[in-house]
Amino acid sequence: MSSLDTLMQDLVIANRILAKEDVVDAYGHVSVRHPDDPKRFLIARSLAPDLVGPEDIVELDLGGQPTRDDGRSLYLERFIHAAIFEARPDVMAVVHAHAEDTLPFGIADGTRLRPVIHSGSFIGIEVPVWDIADRFGDTNLLVTNIEQGRDLAKCLGANSVALMRGHGFATAARSLIEVVRLSVYLPRNARALMRAKQLGGDIKYLSQGEIDARNRGYRPYSPETWRTWEYWANKAGCGHLLTRPDDGHAHPHIRRDNAGLQ
Amino acid sequence: MSSLDTLMQDLVIANRILAKEDVVDAYGHVSVRHPDDPKRFLIARSLAPDLVGPEDIVELDLGGQPTRDDGRSLYLERFIHAAIFEARPDVMAVVHAHAEDTLPFGIADGTRLRPVIHSGSFIGIEVPVWDIADRFGDTNLLVTNIEQGRDLAKCLGANSVALMRGHGFATAARSLIEVVRLSVYLPRNARALMRAKQLGGDIKYLSQGEIDARNRGYRPYSPETWRTWEYWANKAGCGHLLTRPDDGHAHPHIRRDNAGLQ
Amino acid sequence: MSSLDTLMQDLVIANRILAKEDVVDAYGHVSVRHPDDPKRFLIARSLAPDLVGPEDIVELDLGGQPTRDDGRSLYLERFIHAAIFEARPDVMAVVHAHAEDTLPFGIADGTRLRPVIHSGSFIGIEVPVWDIADRFGDTNLLVTNIEQGRDLAKCLGANSVALMRGHGFATAARSLIEVVRLSVYLPRNARALMRAKQLGGDIKYLSQGEIDARNRGYRPYSPETWRTWEYWANKAGCGHLLTRPDDGHAHPHIRRDNAGLQ
Amino acid sequence: MSSLDTLMQDLVIANRILAKEDVVDAYGHVSVRHPDDPKRFLIARSLAPDLVGPEDIVELDLGGQPTRDDGRSLYLERFIHAAIFEARPDVMAVVHAHAEDTLPFGIADGTRLRPVIHSGSFIGIEVPVWDIADRFGDTNLLVTNIEQGRDLAKCLGANSVALMRGHGFATAARSLIEVVRLSVYLPRNARALMRAKQLGGDIKYLSQGEIDARNRGYRPYSPETWRTWEYWANKAGCGHLLTRPDDGHAHPHIRRDNAGLQ
Repeated sequence: MSSLDTLMQDLVIANRILAKEDVVDAYGHVSVRHPDDPKRFLIARSLAPDLVGPEDIVELDLGGQPTRDDGRSLYLERFIHAAIFEARPDVMAVVHAHAEDTLPFGIADGTRLRPVIHSGSFIGIEVPVWDIADRFGDTNLLVTNIEQGRDLAKCLGANSVALMRGHGFATAARSLIEVVRLSVYLPRNARALMRAKQLGGDIKYLSQGEIDARNRGYRPYSPETWRTWEYWANKAGCGHLLTRPDDGHAHPHIRRDNAGLQ
Repeated sequence: MSSLDTLMQDLVIANRILAKEDVVDAYGHVSVRHPDDPKRFLIARSLAPDLVGPEDIVELDLGGQPTRDDGRSLYLERFIHAAIFEARPDVMAVVHAHAEDTLPFGIADGTRLRPVIHSGSFIGIEVPVWDIADRFGDTNLLVTNIEQGRDLAKCLGANSVALMRGHGFATAARSLIEVVRLSVYLPRNARALMRAKQLGGDIKYLSQGEIDARNRGYRPYSPETWRTWEYWANKAGCGHLLTRPDDGHAHPHIRRDNAGLQ
Repeated sequence: MSSLDTLMQDLVIANRILAKEDVVDAYGHVSVRHPDDPKRFLIARSLAPDLVGPEDIVELDLGGQPTRDDGRSLYLERFIHAAIFEARPDVMAVVHAHAEDTLPFGIADGTRLRPVIHSGSFIGIEVPVWDIADRFGDTNLLVTNIEQGRDLAKCLGANSVALMRGHGFATAARSLIEVVRLSVYLPRNARALMRAKQLGGDIKYLSQGEIDARNRGYRPYSPETWRTWEYWANKAGCGHLLTRPDDGHAHPHIRRDNAGLQ
Repeated sequence: MSSLDTLMQDLVIANRILAKEDVVDAYGHVSVRHPDDPKRFLIARSLAPDLVGPEDIVELDLGGQPTRDDGRSLYLERFIHAAIFEARPDVMAVVHAHAEDTLPFGIADGTRLRPVIHSGSFIGIEVPVWDIADRFGDTNLLVTNIEQGRDLAKCLGANSVALMRGHGFATAARSLIEVVRLSVYLPRNARALMRAKQLGGDIKYLSQGEIDARNRGYRPYSPETWRTWEYWANKAGCGHLLTRPDDGHAHPHIRRDNAGLQ
């Protein structure tokens, strides 16, 4: 398979994993930057992620418009992806979702979402909360144009996660594997923190040094990272779609400048 | 298929979705107004929603009595549906259920159920709590006659949801898709609010303006609404029963006066 | 099938339902009084309820001893069943289990378990908590002889449920259907109460009058009761084992002196 | 089958059970001491436990190094197992995992994890919390060398469980069955305690005498212990791999000096 075909297949896997792991339901989406043109990205047409196949992938530009309009319905909120790819050249993959246990942290202002477990380290020391009402007043809460997308991307800044008040979150990472992983462990970290608060006493958050140590070690195709991608894909019923990077195909959308870390 | 057949098939799908999404167990039911006669409605005979097929649909009048009595057992609480259809000509579909995470809000008076997430906007700014004991004293808590149903419908008023103390809820909407969606996201909104309260601090509820903006945009057969119906039907194992509205069949029970919104 | 064969098949169904509904795991058991001899009862040999078939049913006396010893291992805690059948001639079926969400109410003394939802009414106004340590000191917490069983039965008294501190619960009812139903809705009622407490404010418990009204109406083979038995059996993969009471077989272990109530 | 083959098959079962019971996901691992050489142990290669088969088992020494290096990737954290087997000759099996509901007790210092339910008695009266930062400063939180493993083993001491701050836990026991059981009931005990705290009032923990009584009675191949192993194996889809100890094969990794207790 060509590099593009492999990537589209990985995007299908990512869709199915996010559905199986309850990060998305019919809503929520995942995208990846085009391997040959950084000004385009791939995402499914308007379809529940669990039902997405390779034939459902469309190509959009950084304004959120299709490069070939074939009349298929698109996600209303594709501007989240477009604006983040535009603002962040380092970002190769984006997820927007409404995973239930992340929602409380965008609604109540009593507790900030911060990493408390090692697998949550990738959310970073800071998780900004974006409230669409701050700049756009009373809306339907959806990010339906590029201006709203850019405002969200600005709030995200150099972070890997932004919560969206009363709505969900956006995650941004250097590869599909990483953005899926981040999106699966984000609600787990949220639950661990919520329950730790209920136990009372002081909370031990991950230190900046620990977050840095984990970031330094991360590599998308290390055996440790592959292990979870392989596991989740099998659990989601699409293990047969897996393509190992050592099958001889380049994965140009991956930055390989880090050592392995699970 | 005729419009009536299509609608009955949609009613079967609605039953299965509500079971799969844990909104109902053996108890709880969903109904739809008859497309040809606003004084009748369709609902399953006394059967667990997960087991309902087209042959299990019966036709009742607004007094809760079968239009053709074939001796089959009926839901004891069919009067909830009858009374709401009677009081609310705008309502095309009704659900009554006991979804677990809605129950606390009918039992404790410390926190009002209000929308905190965008998918919960359709519950409206106000969710009244009906206590059968207020007018009927010590009962078995079931709505087993039309007077009780009418008292509940009165409490519901122009809202889309009423909680029933120590029992469950009733939801009313303009289409089957909408009432199912409302019933699935109601417990999710309840959980988000419960957990936000536990995190402490101020809660940001959806504003009236946001609720209005979302209601203005809702359309039952928009690509965004269809997406979740298609997803849930497939998840519930009845994707093969789906009939797209653009298959050429009118859906006379749908009001099409709004623009699309997910 | 004979009445005894039907009852044994119902006991198999009861085992499978309790496993599927997460009331038991490998531990926990359900028994039914023998239809022909009130001094004997039927229960599985030492086996996880989910794996129980008709060939695994054994017959014990009210001392907890097998009427025919064929060398098969028996549940260590069969004395819970023996002692309750001995003390309560009105009881036809017993469950002992460790359903997770009932446990906190036997551990913390801050909140009494009481009915807050209509399906929880059958636990009664009072749920005593039995602590094996009160009379037997430091034990392994298991009820492994008839004296311990009798002490538990004494604590249960005329109630339908007793919690067992740090261990689980025992439920007693007039039929298999009723004891299964009681055991499935007990943890649901527990969760509703726990969450209502977290919302704050006053809790509206079911009144004695409401509990009485519901008890008056209960009948094990009403369409409403059958509906949930049929649903749960199908969900547990043993719908094919169902025998309707109107198939012509008497169910002598059922008291039919009440009107129907779901 | 030889004793070693049987043990490797049991190790496969243990992997699958831990995955099915949500104790591990792609991360987390289980090991067993070699039946013929106490200075070696068996564990899977770097692979998600749910996907482990007999061909994936490797043999490591107490320094965490493979006895035959065939180039396969190994778990980065195998040093947890090596160090515990080294420090504790009585220990025959080890699990390391991140089961979600154990995490809060390693993060918040307000509540100590202690046994409150009978199936949680095996965690012992004391559950130490190991913080890798205490001795190693800012790390990626993983136990990636033998010094870190030894520090954890020292914290574990003579206990059966140590929590690892912001990461997970390590459990150590006298057999595979026991360590799996301990690891499955550990999060259940954690949830029961968390919820009991929310109910308020005094908490009744298991007494030292009760813990001792339960430990005295435990035997890995009693009917009661076998019952849960058989149940979990079937639930995890590998009931066909079960080998009863009475099939004529010795299980030299089991200490048989205790009476049976479930």
